Amino acid sequence: MTEDFSHLPAAEQALAAGIVGDQPTVQRRAMAKAITLLESTRPDHRLRADALLNALLPHTGHAFRLGISGVPGVGKSTFIEALGLYLIGQGHRVAVLAVDPSSSVSGGSILGDKTRMEHLSVHPNAYIRPSPSSGTLGGVAEKTREAMLIAEAAGYDVVVIETVGVGQSETAVSGMTDMFCLLQLPNAGDDLQAIKKGVMELADLVVINKADIDPNAATRARAQITSALRLLGMHQHHGGGHGDAHGHGGDLLWQPQVLQLSALKGAGLPEFWAAVTRFRELQAASGRLDQRRQQQSLAWMWERIEAGLRARFRAHPEVRGQLADTTEQVRAGRLAASVAARRLLDLLN
Amino acid sequence: MTEDFSHLPAAEQALAAGIVGDQPTVQRRAMAKAITLLESTRPDHRLRADALLNALLPHTGHAFRLGISGVPGVGKSTFIEALGLYLIGQGHRVAVLAVDPSSSVSGGSILGDKTRMEHLSVHPNAYIRPSPSSGTLGGVAEKTREAMLIAEAAGYDVVVIETVGVGQSETAVSGMTDMFCLLQLPNAGDDLQAIKKGVMELADLVVINKADIDPNAATRARAQITSALRLLGMHQHHGGGHGDAHGHGGDLLWQPQVLQLSALKGAGLPEFWAAVTRFRELQAASGRLDQRRQQQSLAWMWERIEAGLRARFRAHPEVRGQLADTTEQVRAGRLAASVAARRLLDLLN
Repeated sequence: MTEDFSHLPAAEQALAAGIVGDQPTVQRRAMAKAITLLESTRPDHRLRADALLNALLPHTGHAFRLGISGVPGVGKSTFIEALGLYLIGQGHRVAVLAVDPSSSVSGGSILGDKTRMEHLSVHPNAYIRPSPSSGTLGGVAEKTREAMLIAEAAGYDVVVIETVGVGQSETAVSGMTDMFCLLQLPNAGDDLQAIKKGVMELADLVVINKADIDPNAATRARAQITSALRLLGMHQHHGGGHGDAHGHGGDLLWQPQVLQLSALKGAGLPEFWAAVTRFRELQAASGRLDQRRQQQSLAWMWERIEAGLRARFRAHPEVRGQLADTTEQVRAGRLAASVAARRLLDLLN
Repeated sequence: MTEDFSHLPAAEQALAAGIVGDQPTVQRRAMAKAITLLESTRPDHRLRADALLNALLPHTGHAFRLGISGVPGVGKSTFIEALGLYLIGQGHRVAVLAVDPSSSVSGGSILGDKTRMEHLSVHPNAYIRPSPSSGTLGGVAEKTREAMLIAEAAGYDVVVIETVGVGQSETAVSGMTDMFCLLQLPNAGDDLQAIKKGVMELADLVVINKADIDPNAATRARAQITSALRLLGMHQHHGGGHGDAHGHGGDLLWQPQVLQLSALKGAGLPEFWAAVTRFRELQAASGRLDQRRQQQSLAWMWERIEAGLRARFRAHPEVRGQLADTTEQVRAGRLAASVAARRLLDLLN
């Protein structure tokens, strides 16, 4: 692949060349600068970041994109550190990114502190970047999605995207990864929480972590989750709910699996990675991998267009002047919802 | 309530007065004209319909809005006819509307033929209107929502909104009714279909129709559905999935119930209506009924705004010129989704 970045301005040329180049120190600095650029809200930065992203795009897509979710306390950091070091030992280069829309409030609840992965974070073949910390979930997810492309252009061949097991961030991460893994504790009821939140049906693989603490509970949890996945998988088969850009428990080639492991003791990682590899090969061979990514890209484009349309609508001077009053009239039953919508839309003319 | 429609043009004044008046023949003709006006796509008709709707709005909201869904063959028409006649016998006035986005294709698969409810359709205290037959689900649902307001203004105190058990129309009907009832056959597996489609969790009440054909199967189905509802109800409790504008199996005051009946034999209707009445009283007393309607109205306003924004976006000349090519570039991986979204949005400036 030729690396012709000559159409870019000089600063971005240097960044792009650094990112796809083979100088570790230069690359790491270029990645950080590029991600900072694309996280900027300044319109001129945004234009430069877009040009850079597009120039790098032919260098992306070669990594396997692995989403990892689980409630606080499930041991995500320990698991990702153990997995990352295991994969590096197998010759991989591993990037770890995060989607955590709450991090601006909490001061960075995940990956805010790299010392939580103290061995992985200092390894030359690992790249760890905390969640972007501002804005809506859509905005945070967009920046992470773009940082993933930077990491892929830099040759990281496994990108792990972590998210906390709360809110809708799991749907966003499922919508930008090739495989979505849910970490669970061996507690009765923990699986029910995941079903309640609608995240279980996104899972391609469920990992019961800390299985060594209570092997009997882990075995029970595994049986429960397996049966729940079977039910939800049938749900997926028939196109209910989440669309193809996300999880697909109903893929004919892959029934979501449940594994037990202990990240702290390093037990079960080879089996985990074997399952991931089997999934990846099946998906790649069947064309489902490319299909999923295409659908994700188009869904993402429309998600961003709709977010942009909503933002423009709310920012429109006439709408801003009348939205609160109109909303109140609808709430109070003095204005029909459809009439209110048409009146507000007419303000745009 | 004063009935001052003097601010309306003469034609709409006559319609409004006819609708809220007590002359059955005049009322029926005024309702039909009003609904035809609001189904019109002509902009001048739309403005007149909006003015009429707003003038009638103070006269609406007094009916109980009951959504009924179920797959073809479950016996919806027979059930609604039996229910309608039962309610009329109790002194109610019953309007039956429908949401069926497929009706333009199929020539009206539900209620297209009033002879399917031959006794109810000719009763002076019943008003039956087939589904609007054109456009998207959102457009069809909007017209039905508005027709419901007309029926309420005309004093119908029970509005039944029927939909077929396919696609997303159930979500739309759940989002415009006070209570959503799902009709099921006493077949093993029928309940699973409803879970798969995500409609079971919208249900406030599940009715197993044709229970007399195989009482054992009906009893088994009832047990299965009850346990599924318990699981899904817990799901709802914690805010997963559908939001408050729709079903709320997780309401602390109401656990979704499962009833058996035989609409053909008229068995079980009093028990059905007793359950509906109990639900309605609990919801009204707790404030949940008003809350649900407010949330539905606001959700509906935003749904229509977003549909309008999307339609305007797609109709924008610059966007129309570039959307297909941009989409293809994103699909082919030559353009990042977020960059594509920004470029298309920038065309609006």
